Amino acid sequence: MADYQTPLRDINFVLFELLDAEAHYKAIPAYQDISRDLMTAVIEEAAKFADNVLAPLYQVGDREGCTWTPEGVKTPTGFKEAYQQYVENGWPAMSAPVEMGGQGLPHSFGGVVNNEIVGTANWPWGMYPGLSHGAKVTLETHGTEELISQYLPKMIEGSWTGTMCLTEAHCGTDLGLLRTKADPNPDGSYRLSGTKIFISAGDHDMAENIIHIVLARLPDAPAGTKGISLFLVPKFKVNEDGSIGDRNNVNCGSIEHKMGINGSATCVLNFEEAQGFLLGEPNKGLPAMFTFMNTARIGTAIQGLCTAERAFQGALEYARERLQMRSLSGPKNPDAEADPIIVHPNVRRMLLTQKAFAEGGRAFIYWLGTLLDIAHADMGEQSEACEDLLSLLTPIAKAFLTETGLEAANYGVQIFGGHGYIKEWGMEQIVRDGRIATIYEGTTGIQSIDLLGRKVLGSGGELLKNYTKIVHLFCKEHAGNEAMQEFIEPLQAMNKEIGELTMQIGAAAMENPEEAGAASVDYLMYSGYFVLAHMWAKMALLAHSKLEEGTSEESFYAAKIKTARFYYQRLLPRTAMHKQAMLSGAENLMSMAEENFKF
Amino acid sequence: MADYQTPLRDINFVLFELLDAEAHYKAIPAYQDISRDLMTAVIEEAAKFADNVLAPLYQVGDREGCTWTPEGVKTPTGFKEAYQQYVENGWPAMSAPVEMGGQGLPHSFGGVVNNEIVGTANWPWGMYPGLSHGAKVTLETHGTEELISQYLPKMIEGSWTGTMCLTEAHCGTDLGLLRTKADPNPDGSYRLSGTKIFISAGDHDMAENIIHIVLARLPDAPAGTKGISLFLVPKFKVNEDGSIGDRNNVNCGSIEHKMGINGSATCVLNFEEAQGFLLGEPNKGLPAMFTFMNTARIGTAIQGLCTAERAFQGALEYARERLQMRSLSGPKNPDAEADPIIVHPNVRRMLLTQKAFAEGGRAFIYWLGTLLDIAHADMGEQSEACEDLLSLLTPIAKAFLTETGLEAANYGVQIFGGHGYIKEWGMEQIVRDGRIATIYEGTTGIQSIDLLGRKVLGSGGELLKNYTKIVHLFCKEHAGNEAMQEFIEPLQAMNKEIGELTMQIGAAAMENPEEAGAASVDYLMYSGYFVLAHMWAKMALLAHSKLEEGTSEESFYAAKIKTARFYYQRLLPRTAMHKQAMLSGAENLMSMAEENFKF
Repeated sequence: MADYQTPLRDINFVLFELLDAEAHYKAIPAYQDISRDLMTAVIEEAAKFADNVLAPLYQVGDREGCTWTPEGVKTPTGFKEAYQQYVENGWPAMSAPVEMGGQGLPHSFGGVVNNEIVGTANWPWGMYPGLSHGAKVTLETHGTEELISQYLPKMIEGSWTGTMCLTEAHCGTDLGLLRTKADPNPDGSYRLSGTKIFISAGDHDMAENIIHIVLARLPDAPAGTKGISLFLVPKFKVNEDGSIGDRNNVNCGSIEHKMGINGSATCVLNFEEAQGFLLGEPNKGLPAMFTFMNTARIGTAIQGLCTAERAFQGALEYARERLQMRSLSGPKNPDAEADPIIVHPNVRRMLLTQKAFAEGGRAFIYWLGTLLDIAHADMGEQSEACEDLLSLLTPIAKAFLTETGLEAANYGVQIFGGHGYIKEWGMEQIVRDGRIATIYEGTTGIQSIDLLGRKVLGSGGELLKNYTKIVHLFCKEHAGNEAMQEFIEPLQAMNKEIGELTMQIGAAAMENPEEAGAASVDYLMYSGYFVLAHMWAKMALLAHSKLEEGTSEESFYAAKIKTARFYYQRLLPRTAMHKQAMLSGAENLMSMAEENFKF
Repeated sequence: MADYQTPLRDINFVLFELLDAEAHYKAIPAYQDISRDLMTAVIEEAAKFADNVLAPLYQVGDREGCTWTPEGVKTPTGFKEAYQQYVENGWPAMSAPVEMGGQGLPHSFGGVVNNEIVGTANWPWGMYPGLSHGAKVTLETHGTEELISQYLPKMIEGSWTGTMCLTEAHCGTDLGLLRTKADPNPDGSYRLSGTKIFISAGDHDMAENIIHIVLARLPDAPAGTKGISLFLVPKFKVNEDGSIGDRNNVNCGSIEHKMGINGSATCVLNFEEAQGFLLGEPNKGLPAMFTFMNTARIGTAIQGLCTAERAFQGALEYARERLQMRSLSGPKNPDAEADPIIVHPNVRRMLLTQKAFAEGGRAFIYWLGTLLDIAHADMGEQSEACEDLLSLLTPIAKAFLTETGLEAANYGVQIFGGHGYIKEWGMEQIVRDGRIATIYEGTTGIQSIDLLGRKVLGSGGELLKNYTKIVHLFCKEHAGNEAMQEFIEPLQAMNKEIGELTMQIGAAAMENPEEAGAASVDYLMYSGYFVLAHMWAKMALLAHSKLEEGTSEESFYAAKIKTARFYYQRLLPRTAMHKQAMLSGAENLMSMAEENFKF
């Protein structure tokens, strides 16, 4: 497999040049001391660990997978040792509060390091600390002081990890159907019984203890989503002095054999009167879980970006080395028997698509990170505004970046030709690993209904307007910038068009609610191309101004403008298709009787 | 995994109703005796074998894969026994000439049975007889009488199989680079030395002997594609009496570990002075191979159709059974705790996309089959006209149907949600198996250059006009049919538009040959949607006339019209995107310097 290197130049471009992270953090009370030097040092250390330790384990993890044994799940060779190193270096504690033993760095910056840098090198490995992060935040937000002091420090340190136990065999998307029971014990704890499936990092050999966050029903809880409570269930009970006690009655019954992410253990967990502790209010488990799920969706969106970046790097290296055929405009490599395949326009089309999605996705995600920082910072109206933007943009990021990440991964295989199909070359693994991302944490279909139904139409268009205002101001500000018109004009037009489309679909949905469902996926994908167009326009603007100022990195900034142009000319036309499809109405989907799909 | 059933009703619809296969064959001298009853009997027997023997081995083949041993490659459990049954039932001989021991059925009909019916049930298994078919046809066309009489009968019978040995590690698409040598022996045979890779069915335990068709260079052959000759190299030498003799010096060095089609052995073959026999003229190997490759491309196009059909069937069954959430327009299954997911518009969108590609692809492929029959029938101008149409439509079928087949397969996984990602459910295998189809027998990029560069522009537009004339006459004939206007109008418009697009791109390519490459993939995909629109219009027309006549199968024909409408309203808008992208020019692909793709 091609060597992988953390794309430091581009990370720095987005973080420090496009978003001016230093100024951003200085404006937030809790993060005033975060300097660019500190961030650079952390990123460089993380990149070393990712490139030298995690990336080489990427194919090993796939080949070996995880192994179920009666004593517990064994992770692939090297996973445990890499995790030890990760803990020793203090990475799990990076964005935890200082008073809990953490380093107090912003969550958004943690996302760059622990999700993107770690995840591009080895997504399946990164899922162990990743899920743990979700469990930590949930415990921190909803746990009693006692539970927090008993469990959280070890989780922050990383010697214990965590999971999120939601899904059951008959309920994935529809959590209202869940059946796991929690009966009260006299001592105030609960006995949990039921079976959870698809539990990532549900069991493994990397940590001393595993702390499960579990959705279950109290006795006599109302049916449906209003009767779900949240519990903490440790794999090993914890003694009062904090030492590890008896084994709790939660066991990994089996692990799934999957299309990909083989290094990540996907467990069936059987709870048989396992001891658990209530987190938060009874029957308020689902709203509590939603806070976690929003962050998890952005985490999954990052997988799309990781997938695109990894596939791009592999394909680019191959395209520059593989000699095959001659350029249509005459030999480019006349001394060899053929030209490198990067001379062929169609190979370039695929590479530039990967590049546009990876770099555009990075700009999108990092921007969402800055919104998250402010949303969580108790900064009054400013925080609320960011919260509103996030609630609109999160489903777009999750679905759009994972769908386009998968497209990019498939181009990686395609550029390698037959070799792309062979495991040894590592490209097909990126497709298999990336394939889950459009499914977990809510499928593309679910994100689309959330976006169009709950967020856009549910707010009477207000949430969308918050964003189109930003785009409008951007376009207005640069209306006089001639060099930018190739981007500003189409962006302005889309900004208007998305409002019109929303009105039309909203009107149709008032008559027939199926109209919203029927338009939803095309509406989300349209929105995704729109947001990325905004990101690429911002990057092109910055690149133009750097070139005007004068820079020693002319070709870097010129490449940004060329990629923006490629995006606008070659990828943005897809909105025309989504527009027509979303306006075609529900009838062409709903009129087929269920029994007539097949004869 | 969901039960699979050969889609007999739809096969009959296309074969007998849409294409009137009986009348078609009656018009061809060699096939006058082929009755509908005979075809129906053969199809039903094949369907039984496919559904009951091959389909159950689909997942076994993936799980076990092939195993390399020093004695040869072992195929998965049951593969060998299924092949014996296949031979005993006479399937390999179906479309071989009667005078060679075959049954003399048309190749097009053989395609329905041996490619589609077999391949939808178990594509990797079908590759063994499939490759053998290519080898047989090549030997039959280019072999001396002696070679034919010595090798062909056993291959027709099926007790020997064949392969096609083209690719070497450094040459896939670019066969001009190949290095395998063939030195003459005093007895008129040759000694072949070299290494071939990616040889499907290159070694296995299903047949007594394997006959390799090998591309190699004679001493002092001209460089490049003009110095390639074709050889027959048996695994075991054959004695004069036809009995099996000594082992020849061709050995399987290893097998590839692939993303999918694990049941199909993909071999590295080492030729070490292996004895071979020249097929056809020296240095004329590549043109000889092209006849085979055209048929092979249609065979691979069928894989796209198989992939779409198999994924559709699995997803449909699941969508009708899986209960999750309520319909947006109120409960459809009020007695249960949730509605089946087929009530959700987005699930229907995915199912209908699969259905439209599978059924539209079937109509496209079977029509190509009828063209093949006439092209090969020595029917003068009529044959030439069909040959011309085929040369235009083959690259479209190969690339478009495999790309859309893969999309359909991915929807299969998506509809299953998390379960789609688990091997046990069988859906992700369809994606992995189908992924190779856009690569082998010429990637989508290569098909696109062949279509736009060689065929369309290379003929000064003549090959395209042959087809647009057909569409024009169809539209003209039904211009007065009011019920058909929803299809005729857009089809007519596209028929005009594709001519205009071709003119524009042709003009640009005269200035700069890169323009053709830059437009090619979008041009091909546009053409694919156009051809399928033609197919769906024809099917809708037939369905309308059946409904007008009166039929006991009203819902079958009504479903055809609804699927056609879905195709026109939801999928055809994609041409808008391809149009804009293809007209965006080469500059946005070619201006990025090779070293500036990444920093």
